[in-house]
Amino acid sequence: MNKNSSNIMALAPNTSNKRETVCIFGTGDFGRALGHKMIQSGYPVVYGSRSTQISNLVPKDAEVLSHAEAAQKAAIIIIAIQRQHYNFLIPLAEILRGKVLVDISNNLKLNQYPESNAEYLAQLLPGSRVVKAFNTVSAWALQSGTLDASRQVFVCGDDMEAKQMVMNIVRALGLTPLDKGTLSAAQEIENYPLQLFPMWKFPIFLSLGLTVFFFFYCLALDVIYTYIYEKNNFSFFIAITIPNRVCPVMALILLALVYLPGIFAAIIQLYRGTKYRRFPDWLDKWMLCRKQLGLIALAFASLHVVFTLVTPMRAFVSWRTSKGIISQALNNKTEPLDKTNAWISDSYLALGILGFFLFVLLGITSLPSVSNNVNWREFRFVQSKLGYLALIFCTAHTLVYGGKWFLSPSAYKWYLPNIYMLSLVIPCAVLVVKFVLIFPCVDKPLTQIRQGWERNPKHSE
Amino acid sequence: MNKNSSNIMALAPNTSNKRETVCIFGTGDFGRALGHKMIQSGYPVVYGSRSTQISNLVPKDAEVLSHAEAAQKAAIIIIAIQRQHYNFLIPLAEILRGKVLVDISNNLKLNQYPESNAEYLAQLLPGSRVVKAFNTVSAWALQSGTLDASRQVFVCGDDMEAKQMVMNIVRALGLTPLDKGTLSAAQEIENYPLQLFPMWKFPIFLSLGLTVFFFFYCLALDVIYTYIYEKNNFSFFIAITIPNRVCPVMALILLALVYLPGIFAAIIQLYRGTKYRRFPDWLDKWMLCRKQLGLIALAFASLHVVFTLVTPMRAFVSWRTSKGIISQALNNKTEPLDKTNAWISDSYLALGILGFFLFVLLGITSLPSVSNNVNWREFRFVQSKLGYLALIFCTAHTLVYGGKWFLSPSAYKWYLPNIYMLSLVIPCAVLVVKFVLIFPCVDKPLTQIRQGWERNPKHSE
Amino acid sequence: MNKNSSNIMALAPNTSNKRETVCIFGTGDFGRALGHKMIQSGYPVVYGSRSTQISNLVPKDAEVLSHAEAAQKAAIIIIAIQRQHYNFLIPLAEILRGKVLVDISNNLKLNQYPESNAEYLAQLLPGSRVVKAFNTVSAWALQSGTLDASRQVFVCGDDMEAKQMVMNIVRALGLTPLDKGTLSAAQEIENYPLQLFPMWKFPIFLSLGLTVFFFFYCLALDVIYTYIYEKNNFSFFIAITIPNRVCPVMALILLALVYLPGIFAAIIQLYRGTKYRRFPDWLDKWMLCRKQLGLIALAFASLHVVFTLVTPMRAFVSWRTSKGIISQALNNKTEPLDKTNAWISDSYLALGILGFFLFVLLGITSLPSVSNNVNWREFRFVQSKLGYLALIFCTAHTLVYGGKWFLSPSAYKWYLPNIYMLSLVIPCAVLVVKFVLIFPCVDKPLTQIRQGWERNPKHSE
Repeated sequence: MNKNSSNIMALAPNTSNKRETVCIFGTGDFGRALGHKMIQSGYPVVYGSRSTQISNLVPKDAEVLSHAEAAQKAAIIIIAIQRQHYNFLIPLAEILRGKVLVDISNNLKLNQYPESNAEYLAQLLPGSRVVKAFNTVSAWALQSGTLDASRQVFVCGDDMEAKQMVMNIVRALGLTPLDKGTLSAAQEIENYPLQLFPMWKFPIFLSLGLTVFFFFYCLALDVIYTYIYEKNNFSFFIAITIPNRVCPVMALILLALVYLPGIFAAIIQLYRGTKYRRFPDWLDKWMLCRKQLGLIALAFASLHVVFTLVTPMRAFVSWRTSKGIISQALNNKTEPLDKTNAWISDSYLALGILGFFLFVLLGITSLPSVSNNVNWREFRFVQSKLGYLALIFCTAHTLVYGGKWFLSPSAYKWYLPNIYMLSLVIPCAVLVVKFVLIFPCVDKPLTQIRQGWERNPKHSE
Repeated sequence: MNKNSSNIMALAPNTSNKRETVCIFGTGDFGRALGHKMIQSGYPVVYGSRSTQISNLVPKDAEVLSHAEAAQKAAIIIIAIQRQHYNFLIPLAEILRGKVLVDISNNLKLNQYPESNAEYLAQLLPGSRVVKAFNTVSAWALQSGTLDASRQVFVCGDDMEAKQMVMNIVRALGLTPLDKGTLSAAQEIENYPLQLFPMWKFPIFLSLGLTVFFFFYCLALDVIYTYIYEKNNFSFFIAITIPNRVCPVMALILLALVYLPGIFAAIIQLYRGTKYRRFPDWLDKWMLCRKQLGLIALAFASLHVVFTLVTPMRAFVSWRTSKGIISQALNNKTEPLDKTNAWISDSYLALGILGFFLFVLLGITSLPSVSNNVNWREFRFVQSKLGYLALIFCTAHTLVYGGKWFLSPSAYKWYLPNIYMLSLVIPCAVLVVKFVLIFPCVDKPLTQIRQGWERNPKHSE
Repeated sequence: MNKNSSNIMALAPNTSNKRETVCIFGTGDFGRALGHKMIQSGYPVVYGSRSTQISNLVPKDAEVLSHAEAAQKAAIIIIAIQRQHYNFLIPLAEILRGKVLVDISNNLKLNQYPESNAEYLAQLLPGSRVVKAFNTVSAWALQSGTLDASRQVFVCGDDMEAKQMVMNIVRALGLTPLDKGTLSAAQEIENYPLQLFPMWKFPIFLSLGLTVFFFFYCLALDVIYTYIYEKNNFSFFIAITIPNRVCPVMALILLALVYLPGIFAAIIQLYRGTKYRRFPDWLDKWMLCRKQLGLIALAFASLHVVFTLVTPMRAFVSWRTSKGIISQALNNKTEPLDKTNAWISDSYLALGILGFFLFVLLGITSLPSVSNNVNWREFRFVQSKLGYLALIFCTAHTLVYGGKWFLSPSAYKWYLPNIYMLSLVIPCAVLVVKFVLIFPCVDKPLTQIRQGWERNPKHSE
């Protein structure tokens, strides 16, 4: 089969009666795993290798030839070798001319080289058509068939036809190709598998910082202050009492921080009188990590719920309860039911439960498979309307619970406000401004600005 | 480039070496966002606009021309303008002849116009090939790349080839096209983004109505009755006690309502002796909203669980507990452990926990991504077998918990049955009939009917 | 329309202006449901039937002809009849020559026949091009449009072009085709809808067995021993106390069993000095069901959490609490707070909560839609790093909780160790060996082996 005919065959992948032969350069882990999968899917596979002895590791239906021979057998060549060895392809440039070269390489560090591996390959072999693909798939997942991690294969390349041929192979292997555009996207694609939750970095660091701050704030006020002034060692508060103060505070603040950028955006749009100017960069970034902030808030809220529910099981709490009951019994009197207290206790519990319930609902709708099944209006309804309702319930829960401390002087140890008061600042601010923003006289111009209907003419084209 | 050649190019989208040029009429939000995304994916984009001054809002790699000039450059024209302005396209009819026009418009209300926007466009320009697409995607999501809401793009149109061309673009943008058939589906597609959980409407209204009824029923019996006859103000029951009575009742009734239509269907099929006649309309609709009913039941059950778990934290409960203990202490006696009571208390808790556990399992398997990974037999096993088991556990939980009230006269305040008894009617009926239906003498003919094997010959063709 | 022209049309499915006609043999449930869906998607449908009377069950836009006539009208024929009746197709062999026959049949039992139905069909009609498809889709789901169960359609066949034609139809119906290769995969595809959680079988049987063992172990030590030696009937422990001992033990052991095979694999690789030899079969299988083991462990852990949280609501527990308080009150003394006990109680609760929190996080990331959105490095970070952290927390939780029993002789009833001690064996072993494996002197060669860099030369090619 000469080179021409193989190219012609490749040009019509869907109408040929057989799958086109694929050549793989390199018999390393990934090369073997990919070859194995391709043979399963009906592709004839030929390996290009320095040593053409048939290794028992190479899939048994595959042919092993020299690089030059193997390349001539196929229109698509998968380069399953390290970037450092790309040089050896230069002598093969003539054979590889016009062929589709699939760069599947990954680096060990983000932006390790000035240009991406795929672009480097394209520079070395300007006559070939380089496509980046498969670098996000793991050899182990390919071989074991357990594609729990992503089925998505990012593909990019300058040659449309070459890209289509590679995407057809991707589909045939049961994976989902995602066209990322020209070869200039290769850098991003090569960085992708090296990333570790890039969208989560800022929210996680922010919440870690705040958590540490609030933890030591509570430690100072609840343990150290008590130890100094009341000579009482409550160091075991570190295990549950203090975490259960920090968690709800973090949950409430982070939930408010989810809705704060929307407030800022509305104010900026109202002030500017147009939506056709970009928001400041920090606001853009903030808006893009709202989902992450919300999910971390949900995690804190869940911890708060469980920490609260184990309360009756704590040795300290049952000791305190017994002490109260025994002292009543020894004094021969039974305190009557304090109905105000019963109302307050039941109200903040109920408010907290409803707030948490809505919060969990928000979390569930942010699961990719659920949000893929709702339309834009439904998604906005849940994330905005129900989200604000959750914020209102949670703020009310905190207000009813901690309200009594506002006026009590004992709450101001070392002249510092109680942690509840600190936690209420941002949520209350968000709710108050939002309340102002839904007044018709403010809401109407804002809606018009957002529909693009009205803008100060100075900003128009 | 004349019109002919651009059409020829478009006919072979997969084999041309470059992406075909796309023209966008209108430089509004969506037009710009779509153009931006298309340029990213390698499509040359040309805008048709009244003012051909280059606006700084239009993507910088795009050309801006007059409508007529822009239309001549491309085989596909995206109509990113309001339906009210479609009239201005009539003078361009000759240039647009044979072109693919993509209608992306949305309305503000359901069924706002007698015909869909896309059909209206097709009537105005009978020589063009109109395809409806992209109307469910939001401009903001396109631009920010955070396609949390649906990646699905509904496409419809009368011309197969035009539809294929549009679907190829949709795929290239990283979205998933879903072919909805001919242009007559456009009305439905245009209504889609205006819908707010249409499948949820009936279940939500039903449960809201029942919740309100049971709330006031409990309010009357637990608060008002006590206030009138025992002069005791237990108004704080509104916060937790009453919700925690209403929630389990609602969960149990709604769960039973999930399985009731299946029972009706079986009886109807047995009676008719065939499965080849349509069920009554109300039964069809009921069967289609079983998932929603079940999920609302799960929400009520979850609330019941949390409301129950906070019980020991309530001021009223700790007051009642102390009172009991103190009165024992003051009387100098310790009551022995009532083992029957211990059995009953532990049993209903355990039954409730197991029922709730199975219920959550059902909820998890109804997540789209989980149900996509099970086969039909597994899905039916979970939803039917485990679902009935959950119903049995939950009914038993309620029976064991509330059983003692059945014979106690104090449970019939104002001659009204306790809410527990009301909640048990439907679940018990479902379980009893289901029990009858699995008897071999009933199950065998039913299975045969469902396999289509046996039917009264009068209904056959 | 003669056969040739219909084939030519079919060869260019994407560029023809109309959808090609599809013929369906058989007017049973599935045939009708599929035909209905196809007409909706714009395919002209013609039925082949013995009786050509127009049945009112067949979709009204479909034509009903004799088998021979219907077959001549289309290039694709869907065989919606039982395998037992395939024989009647033999006389039609000449008409069916070159046509694409889609076998959609299912069997009632796994491996019911020596060869798959599709292969049998291909043997009967060697001139036709047989494709297996649609057998995993249910007629009811097709008709009602509620494709909650899988949207995936497995397709296999020896003829590439025929397969592509069928996959195009699958896509047009809004389903996702998945190419499983040649017709030899038909057996597997036919078995798929008959399977009931095949990957779950071993983990479920293993955990059932262990659960039964531990249940009776606890029953003997807690109920029977107490009854014999202390004449106390604590049979109600069966409902909550014993399940709440078995659940945490099962959760901990199963979680450790998730990480044990990784430890074995590391030791085997270190011993062999290469990763290029297959693991023993049992280890391979074990590694493939780690996800299932982990999820079952999570189910046990969740049950443990709820069983624990209801503790204060149990009649037995409130009786025991009252008894303790009353005896203190009657003796006129209040025990001081035991701070060591407070530390221990709070620590094991906090450790358990954190361990469970991480465990739930692991569970959420194993949802298909979540794991599809993380890259391989992130997936491994969560499943490995956070997983080990969860194991450490849960083991510490058990150690702190049960630690006091290790030295207490009363814990060795009938000379048997307490169940806590049994549960700690595997987790502690896993953690100790893992700790050894992360020492640099062990970790460095292991990492090298896993990167394929270093291996004993005797194993190389």
